[in-house]
Amino acid sequence: MPRYRATVEYAGTAFHGWQRQRNVLSVQEVFEETLARLVLEPVTVFAAGRTDTGVHALGQVVHFDLKKAWTPFRLQSALNFYFRPHSVAVLSLEEVAPDFHARLHAVERCYIYRLMNRRAPLCLDKKRAWHIITPLDVPDMEKAAQYLVGQHDFTTFRAKDCQSRSPIKTIYEIRFMQEGALIEMYIRAPSFLHCQVRNIMGTLVLVGRRVWPARRIKTALEAKDRAAGGPTAPPHGLFFARVVYPAKRGLDHVQRKN
Amino acid sequence: MPRYRATVEYAGTAFHGWQRQRNVLSVQEVFEETLARLVLEPVTVFAAGRTDTGVHALGQVVHFDLKKAWTPFRLQSALNFYFRPHSVAVLSLEEVAPDFHARLHAVERCYIYRLMNRRAPLCLDKKRAWHIITPLDVPDMEKAAQYLVGQHDFTTFRAKDCQSRSPIKTIYEIRFMQEGALIEMYIRAPSFLHCQVRNIMGTLVLVGRRVWPARRIKTALEAKDRAAGGPTAPPHGLFFARVVYPAKRGLDHVQRKN
Repeated sequence: MPRYRATVEYAGTAFHGWQRQRNVLSVQEVFEETLARLVLEPVTVFAAGRTDTGVHALGQVVHFDLKKAWTPFRLQSALNFYFRPHSVAVLSLEEVAPDFHARLHAVERCYIYRLMNRRAPLCLDKKRAWHIITPLDVPDMEKAAQYLVGQHDFTTFRAKDCQSRSPIKTIYEIRFMQEGALIEMYIRAPSFLHCQVRNIMGTLVLVGRRVWPARRIKTALEAKDRAAGGPTAPPHGLFFARVVYPAKRGLDHVQRKN
Repeated sequence: MPRYRATVEYAGTAFHGWQRQRNVLSVQEVFEETLARLVLEPVTVFAAGRTDTGVHALGQVVHFDLKKAWTPFRLQSALNFYFRPHSVAVLSLEEVAPDFHARLHAVERCYIYRLMNRRAPLCLDKKRAWHIITPLDVPDMEKAAQYLVGQHDFTTFRAKDCQSRSPIKTIYEIRFMQEGALIEMYIRAPSFLHCQVRNIMGTLVLVGRRVWPARRIKTALEAKDRAAGGPTAPPHGLFFARVVYPAKRGLDHVQRKN
């Protein structure tokens, strides 16, 4: 059975997250139902990350098996055609080795969290950024964020329902960009706990608003207690930006003549 | 009568442009009706540029007179509150000299045209960029654009219904930015003809698609004939980004104690 890897963009607004659930629409359901319609059999789609309700994806990565081989170009076109009117699109698609796994083989994930820091309500960035009216001290937020870089017990920034076996995670980098009212946080790690990025953002905003001194992030982290952390930032500012696989995994896709 | 200047953002998608028209919703109508509701009398709002149906604004500038003075802060808040649910927001507001005119005193206008150059349909940038599937040669588009910089007769890039007295305009700068699939064109001029930016963009895309050699832009310009130009780019890629006033106009607003 040929295996395919797809890089996927979606606007999270209309979906109850990636994962299939009863009675509500998920990206996984749209993806699987569209594939089933194309190949006339049920297909399971595995994603690199399970995004929550309202969270967007710029570069989610998924894999799935089909019984018959398709040319990647035709499969991508057909998927994009039948995804409509849903806000889901396959940006690229390729055949990969039959043991490739979108989630298990990912070595790095990158999220972007967007803030719009201004008094006026959002028009063009509505549902694409967290609107914060109080002026934020971005250099202080970036400074505070550095306490989180490295390997730590992230219990303070972990959702109660998080299913990860361990709260110990490694953050490679947290970086901020500011341009006018737009503030973006880039965060890279091998993997994340449930709601980790949103809990970090919600807490860093306390620093930005000068409710917390930067150093309190360190105290909060060391408390290993969710109650010591700040609130969870809303999902509509979060973008699942990129997934990295080892170079080998990028090269070992089957070259099939079509 | 105190005069106010406001910088305004709007998503053009739901509006039939800036200018008030019968039976369809315009940004001007929303703005004027909201003001009338606040001050209980009719108010006329003048804009720096009349954007067309579907065109967005990041920094449209308007002015209007009120019979009674408002503190700018309160007026901005009230407008933004009552604009809802429309996608219109006042980014900044100040009292200006009673002879300030948003359109007549503007010395420079800047537009941004956004293209998304990729096969996959747009999710996150839907209605915020022109989707072009054919790969575009951006350096060639930028090169071709330079033939348009300076003072020229822009009849080739002027809408049939354009009400400007003269087709002669000066373009200060045309610059391109590319980041992944996103291509942005920045264009600055004292003022523009009706549909000039969209007609220029539509024509430059012919160059980008290698349907036209770059030099043909020069021939088209010199033809002074709309039929010699390319098609009109769609409105939803166009953003009215910025209006510049002389430094004097920026300083001469009345400082009123409230």
